[in-house]
This record gives sequence, structure tokens and C-alpha cells, in this order.
Amino acid sequence: MSGPTVAIVGATGAVGVEMLAVLEQRGLKVGTLRLLASPRSAGKSMRFGGADVPVQALDESSLLNWPGRPAGRGPDLALFSAGSGISKQWGPIAAAAGSVVVDNSSAFRMDAGVPLVVPEVNPAHLPAPRAPGAPGPGCIIANPNCSTIILLVALTPLQRRWGVARAVVSTYQAASGAGAQGMDELLTQTRDVVQGGAATPRVFKEPYAFNLFSHNSAVDATTGWNVEEHKMLAETRKMWADDSVRISATCVRVPVLRAHCESVNVTLRRPATLREVTAALAAAPGLRIIDDRAGNDFPTPLKASGGDDVLVGRLRADLSQARPGEGRQPDNLGPDEPTLGFEFFIAGDQLRKGAALNAVQIAELVVTGLRPQ
Amino acid sequence: MSGPTVAIVGATGAVGVEMLAVLEQRGLKVGTLRLLASPRSAGKSMRFGGADVPVQALDESSLLNWPGRPAGRGPDLALFSAGSGISKQWGPIAAAAGSVVVDNSSAFRMDAGVPLVVPEVNPAHLPAPRAPGAPGPGCIIANPNCSTIILLVALTPLQRRWGVARAVVSTYQAASGAGAQGMDELLTQTRDVVQGGAATPRVFKEPYAFNLFSHNSAVDATTGWNVEEHKMLAETRKMWADDSVRISATCVRVPVLRAHCESVNVTLRRPATLREVTAALAAAPGLRIIDDRAGNDFPTPLKASGGDDVLVGRLRADLSQARPGEGRQPDNLGPDEPTLGFEFFIAGDQLRKGAALNAVQIAELVVTGLRPQ
Repeated sequence: MSGPTVAIVGATGAVGVEMLAVLEQRGLKVGTLRLLASPRSAGKSMRFGGADVPVQALDESSLLNWPGRPAGRGPDLALFSAGSGISKQWGPIAAAAGSVVVDNSSAFRMDAGVPLVVPEVNPAHLPAPRAPGAPGPGCIIANPNCSTIILLVALTPLQRRWGVARAVVSTYQAASGAGAQGMDELLTQTRDVVQGGAATPRVFKEPYAFNLFSHNSAVDATTGWNVEEHKMLAETRKMWADDSVRISATCVRVPVLRAHCESVNVTLRRPATLREVTAALAAAPGLRIIDDRAGNDFPTPLKASGGDDVLVGRLRADLSQARPGEGRQPDNLGPDEPTLGFEFFIAGDQLRKGAALNAVQIAELVVTGLRPQ
Repeated sequence: MSGPTVAIVGATGAVGVEMLAVLEQRGLKVGTLRLLASPRSAGKSMRFGGADVPVQALDESSLLNWPGRPAGRGPDLALFSAGSGISKQWGPIAAAAGSVVVDNSSAFRMDAGVPLVVPEVNPAHLPAPRAPGAPGPGCIIANPNCSTIILLVALTPLQRRWGVARAVVSTYQAASGAGAQGMDELLTQTRDVVQGGAATPRVFKEPYAFNLFSHNSAVDATTGWNVEEHKMLAETRKMWADDSVRISATCVRVPVLRAHCESVNVTLRRPATLREVTAALAAAPGLRIIDDRAGNDFPTPLKASGGDDVLVGRLRADLSQARPGEGRQPDNLGPDEPTLGFEFFIAGDQLRKGAALNAVQIAELVVTGLRPQ
């Protein structure tokens, strides 16, 4: 039996390209594959499984008419990464036509009926697996924001075992979060500057070469939070199903191409030792510890780029935590002394675990037959 | 009467060059000026006050024999920025020979008898002003670490008015913190990478082009803190004369040339409103607020580069703070509602306020006659 039918909507974008690569690298059994994009990309082709697959314009026919399937029946799986507008327009159509839609945009993330899922975090929120060609309507599953995904892969093991009372996060976000045009902007400006020219901002307001700036999303006039920061809080509350979660984020765009880093300060609800926290992270799925103090070897964007794991390092007790009734912590707290505060630094590929890989992992769990071979 | 005699030790380094520029830009009245450096820089010359000033090798004669002064008498002011080794060797000699030594290295910062000073923070720690040619021994005054200086210019107004219970800081530090060779490393690698080549690390262990990494100072085997992070804590305690201060820092080197940024989350001892905090920062010396939420206009390294002010923006209440007895803060806390937690983002030129400017400002306060004209 052939594998599920799969459409990638937004196939030529930075995340779409990576979705195709992830499908191939994981050796998933795909039946008919369609690459859908805007009309201006139609006619291009992309390599998959040793063949050239044409890129088609997204329309009702390319999305809903598949050989050997009833007319108007969507593909078994539709991976969307073409922006919120396209997702809002076409996602519900595909779901009504029987497709499992995994949407990488923010269009449906906070909708009450739409599961928002990181497989390592809340797989129980996923609907039951569907066999290829199963009758009836499909569903929409939302892929969280990239910064949220990378954070929660690391934070959830702590939440499960000790509870997370509070987290203070500062991000170091790559150009890829703004797509291929973001990466082009960084490269073009940098090339101009090292050749003695000036940086000309086109995509971002601020110059990007050898510079960094507060995340380019809108800032709330009342709270001062930007949209990216608010996503990290709201999405975490939804995925942990806990409205009492307290997370404060400062989101910053740095001149790095495709992996995000985050500096995380966490306060647990119950005390733990550094040794216990490290062991919990070492045992958690999707995480890899790089934490060599003597060798000064820790996570970096380049170490994370192209890989599947979220890297975690700089693991240490937070000596700035108050110790109830005793003032500050001693400055030499040992790894077996319990405390409430910990710090670490994480790096994850924004295009992979932060987007394409997470979407494909969701699909593997929901679409029967789409399994690593 | 001519101005004070001044030696710049390490004149050809990144900070030395900036010391010379700051002396000139502030229009300080300098008598004889000597530029001292390693023997391999001797014979070069640097522009000051419309003239070429030769660079001389640092030795007993160039440091201690000045025309019109008793033999063995040091200059009125010796600005040191040639590394800890040179400072340890020559700083005490110059001070014993009557010079006011302002040392940019970490050599003496934590010495009990040496004041560690940021003029906006703890000017009272400075010794009484000395007239040029005053008899008797001089003194050593230490310039704090660049990240500490930039942080404390912004944090001290809050400490004075409300008390700072705790601060959690993540830094975004420029290449210039490792001197001219650090900036060269970033530029060279970046040029190689945009031309399709590979980054070859020489100064730092990690590749630097389009990458970031945990600060390149040694990491304590017990605490996991690196030296840079520990400086920020220890120097703050010394300058605020308060060993109960709780600051946790995560220091990260980013691919930016010469200005440091810091994401700061602060818990006050007594509640304040955002409006009050903003007003206190707006009134503080050495700070400039850039905080346009609607225009997404906030501090960046490029905005801070070459300037004297520490820039502060992204000012907001920290909604992740617990409200005693009431759980979390409301998500829409207004600017006139009191709370304990605040967040902001700062940027400061590492070579100027983080080093050269702060040293010259100290000198202006201690060496009589060295005043902006």
C-alpha cells in the first residue's frame, strides 16, 4: 500500500524547503506529494526522493483534486507554512475536505478547538490517528511559535517534575524567523558592510549587519510586550493547560542565520538540586546537553543549525534567588544542595524543531502510515 | 598654566585609541601627553590636538621622566589599558611616583584599598582631587568591567530610590570587549563567510561570523558562573557597598562590533509604578531613553556606538512577578499601578562608557585642572 498523500503549502519558503528535507531525511513513506505555492513559484521544481517534483500554484484544484481519490477530497496531510493569510483562507477548506492540516502560522494557535502541540510537551492534545483516505472531516493542528517550541522542549521536563513557578527568558533570535527574506537581508547587508558600503534596511526597520534589535513584531501600547513575547506566554499556558504560568520574555533579533538561542532563568515550585535538574534534562526527548565548563563548550546557533535536537548548557543554580529567611544563597552552592532557581542557555534550529521538524513530528503521530521507515 | 601631564599606557589598543579620542572630544586641557605601548608599537604616531604624537615604548624612563618635573616623578595622570599584567607591573610604580592611575584592567578592582568607580554610581568613593605636580604618592582607581558599568548606570537610580532586591541580566556583548583583535576576528571571519569561505577561529574558540557563544572567560567548576558574570556581581556589591545584592548574569558574545546590550529584569525592594521608574531613569545622568512602542524604536548597538550615553528602552512592568497573596499580576497592568518587577533593555558603547569615557570621567574628578574647557 502506498503512503499518505501529502501537500506542502508554501513549499518554496524557508520552512517549506525544510519540511521537504525533513520528510526525506526521516524516510517517511509518502504517496503522492504536491508542492503548492504562490503562482509566481509555479513551474519551478524541487528535488524529493530522487525526482523533480513540480511546484504548482495553490488553488482549489491543486489542493483538493488528487488522482485516485474522490474529487473534492483533500490530501491525507497538508503542511501549511505560507503565512497566516493563506492558512486562514485555505486551512479550513482542507480540513473540511478531510485533510489533517498542520499549520505553522499563528492563524489558529489560540483557537479553543485547535490543539497546539509540541510532541515532547503535550502529545495528549493530539487527535486520534487517522488512516489515509479515512472518510469525514479532517482537523487543524497548530504548530507553536518557534521560540515557544524551543523553550518548552527544555522547560517541560522541569514543569512535570517540580513545577515551574516563573521563568525569565531573553532570546537571541535568528534571521530565519522572518523567512528567506530575513536571511537574505542579513546576508546582503553584511556583504555590503564588509565591502565598505552601508547597510540598507528593506525587511526590518533597523540595520541588521553587525547589529541587533528588539523583535520586529508590534509592541502592545499598554503592557510594552511585543507580539512574539506574548506568544511565548500565551502558548505556554495553552500547552501546559495552566493559566497560572508566569513567563516573562524579552525577544531580540540577532545577526545569526537560522538557529535561535534563549537565556533561561527558572524558578521551580519545589526545590531540586542541580544534579537532579541536569539528569531530568538529559533523560528528556528532543534535548541534548552540551555543558563542558572546563572546555567552555556550550550551545551555539552553529552547533544547533541543521540538527534536530534542542541543545542545552550553562546549567547552573541561580545564586540570585532568595533563600527564605536566610537572605541570599551562598556563592558556592554545590550540585547536591537543593534550591529553587536554575539557569541555562538553549539553542535550537528555528527552521527545524522551531517549525518544519515539529510539524512533521505532529503529522507522524496523527497520520497513520506516515512513519519513519 | 599648562594642563596636567598625561600618559596613556596601551595607547594603540582599542580602548587606548578611544581614550585619546575622548580626551580630545571633551576638550580637556592636557599639558604634556605621552602615548606608551609595547616596543613593537614604538615609532608609530597618533593624532591629538592637531599634532602627531609619537608612540613610545613603556619603560621606567618614558613613564617616570618628564621635562620640567623632578626625575622619577610620574605624570599627573596615567590612564592604563594594556591588560592586567602591565597594570600589575607598572600601576603601583606610577602611583608610588605620584601619578593618579586610572586602570581599565581587572588587576586591582577587588583590592580593598582601591576605589572602583563609575562617576554616576559612587563618586563618593573617589579620593580628594589632586593638583597637578602635587607632592607625595598618587593612587590607583579602578575602572569597572564594561558590562558592569553599563548595567549600573541604569540600575543605580532604581537602587537609590527603591532598592534593588534582585536583578537577572542576559548580555549581548560586542567583539570590542576582546580588543581590536576581537573586532578583527569578527570582521575577517565574516568577510570569509560571505565570500563563500569558512570561518577560521583564532582569537575565540568558537566561530564568530553569524554565530554567538557563551562569554569566552573561564567558567567556575563549582558554580558554573564565568569570570565575566562573577565580575558583574562582585563589582556591583563593591560599588553599592552592599554584600546582600543579588544579581545573576548570563554573559554572551554576539557578532556585533563595539556596543554591548543587556536585557535586565529587576525586582525592587519597595513597589513603584512604571511611570515613576521611567521618570527616575529619565532624570539620571549618563542615560538616554529610547522607548517608542508605536514606532518599535528601542536601543540597539548601532544607536549606542560612538556615543556617550547608555541607552535604555523596552521599559515595562514584569508581569511574571508574583503578587503576594494574589498569584500572578494581571496581564494589563497599567503604568500607574505599583509593582515590584520591571524590565528594560540597555545599550552602551563598550569602548566609551564601558571603558575609555568612564576612565576619563574619573580622571576629570580627581585631577585638578583636567576639566572640559
